[in-house]
Amino acid sequence: MIAATPDPPYVAVIFTSIRATATDAPGSEPYDEHGYAETATAMEQLARAQRGYLGIESARNPGGLGITVSYWATDGDARAWKLVAEHLVAQRLGRERWYAQYRTRVASVGRDYGT
Amino acid sequence: MIAATPDPPYVAVIFTSIRATATDAPGSEPYDEHGYAETATAMEQLARAQRGYLGIESARNPGGLGITVSYWATDGDARAWKLVAEHLVAQRLGRERWYAQYRTRVASVGRDYGT
Repeated sequence: MIAATPDPPYVAVIFTSIRATATDAPGSEPYDEHGYAETATAMEQLARAQRGYLGIESARNPGGLGITVSYWATDGDARAWKLVAEHLVAQRLGRERWYAQYRTRVASVGRDYGT
Repeated sequence: MIAATPDPPYVAVIFTSIRATATDAPGSEPYDEHGYAETATAMEQLARAQRGYLGIESARNPGGLGITVSYWATDGDARAWKLVAEHLVAQRLGRERWYAQYRTRVASVGRDYGT
C-alpha cells in the first residue's frame, strides 16, 4: 500500500539495505525470507506504535536490495524512530547477518504529487 | 546497489507505485515484468543523463509495491527530473497501464548514516 500521508511538510526516513548472501554469512541459509519477513513485520508494528507515525512503505527485490520508507510528523519523531529501528536491526544483524550493507537517510518532504 | 551519495544536504525524489493487475487492465498480461524492467532501465538511464544526478535505488515486491528513490544535488535538479520521469511514466502508462497508483515525494536529505 502507498502510505496515506497528509499534506507536506512531514519527514521521511529512507532505509536502504542489501541482504547478506550465503557467501557473506557462512553457515547460514542464503535468503532467509522467513526471518527477514519477520523483522520487516516487527519493524512495521514498532513504527505504528511510535509517536508521530504517518505511514510506511517497503519493497525488496528478491534476494537483493530493499527500501523501507517511513513517514513522520516531525524531525524529532523521525530521530526517535531511527534509534528504535537501528536497535532492532542491530539485534537481528548480530544473530542473523541479514544486511550486508545499509544506509539510513532522514529527509524533509516539501512536496508530493500522485494519483 | 546502495547509492554512493555525498555528504548531505542533497535531495531525494521518492517514487512509490503499485502495479496494475489484470483486473485493472483488462486484456493486458498481469505483471508484465519484461515491460516493467524496460521502463525501470529507461528511467535509470534517463536519470543518469540529468544534471545533478547523484544516484538511484529501486526495489519492487514481485507483482506489488515498488519504490524508486533518486538523489539529486539541488532542488532544481530534482524538479527537472520529476518532469522527465513523470513524462516517461505517463507515456508508458497510456500504453501499458503498469501503475494502478503512484505517488512522488520530493524531500531534502539532512542527515544520513550507515555502513
